[in-house]
Amino acid sequence: MNIFDSLPQEMTAEDFLPLTTHAGVRIERIVSKGQVTPEGEWYDQDWAEWVYLVEGGATLLLEGPDEEVSLGAGDWLFLAAHRRHRVIWTDAERVTIWLAVHWPEEGRA
Amino acid sequence: MNIFDSLPQEMTAEDFLPLTTHAGVRIERIVSKGQVTPEGEWYDQDWAEWVYLVEGGATLLLEGPDEEVSLGAGDWLFLAAHRRHRVIWTDAERVTIWLAVHWPEEGRA
Repeated sequence: MNIFDSLPQEMTAEDFLPLTTHAGVRIERIVSKGQVTPEGEWYDQDWAEWVYLVEGGATLLLEGPDEEVSLGAGDWLFLAAHRRHRVIWTDAERVTIWLAVHWPEEGRA
Repeated sequence: MNIFDSLPQEMTAEDFLPLTTHAGVRIERIVSKGQVTPEGEWYDQDWAEWVYLVEGGATLLLEGPDEEVSLGAGDWLFLAAHRRHRVIWTDAERVTIWLAVHWPEEGRA
């Protein structure tokens, strides 16, 4: 299966496609085109996340410590659970394709 | 950090670079250039693996059920624990860059 398969044609919202879910780990493709996290909202997740930018461009704002991170093709970023973050920019001219790996931080051997 | 950073210049063997290890999950970059699994050897892992091919080309042989899988840029493959597999071809003319996610199958919530 290929990450570029069945890319969404209509991009009124971000597109989430589960790729693999197994033994607590969830891997998904996210496609953005200009979407950002709504004003004032933050992601504050109980699980760890690792994102890889396949193509496009995005900027995230992280809290604690505060940091602005710009991602281009090939960039990756690890987000521990409860590292609050929001997406403040994605390229509106072309699709941005993310690979996101999510896994629980607790209950691990 | 970028997947294309510090690509190995000498490729007498495959190159393994840990990217993130956290709460049981290990994510690494693998760079190949013509290397294959030695004749008669198989990977038989206690953990699950998910691989994504960033660029290049590779062919894997899987057992039970037997399957030959060719991977190009953007292709991904999930391998459950103990799904025996070997790499029977990687492009010798250019580097093949893999993203590999490894995680335990047992002891999960």
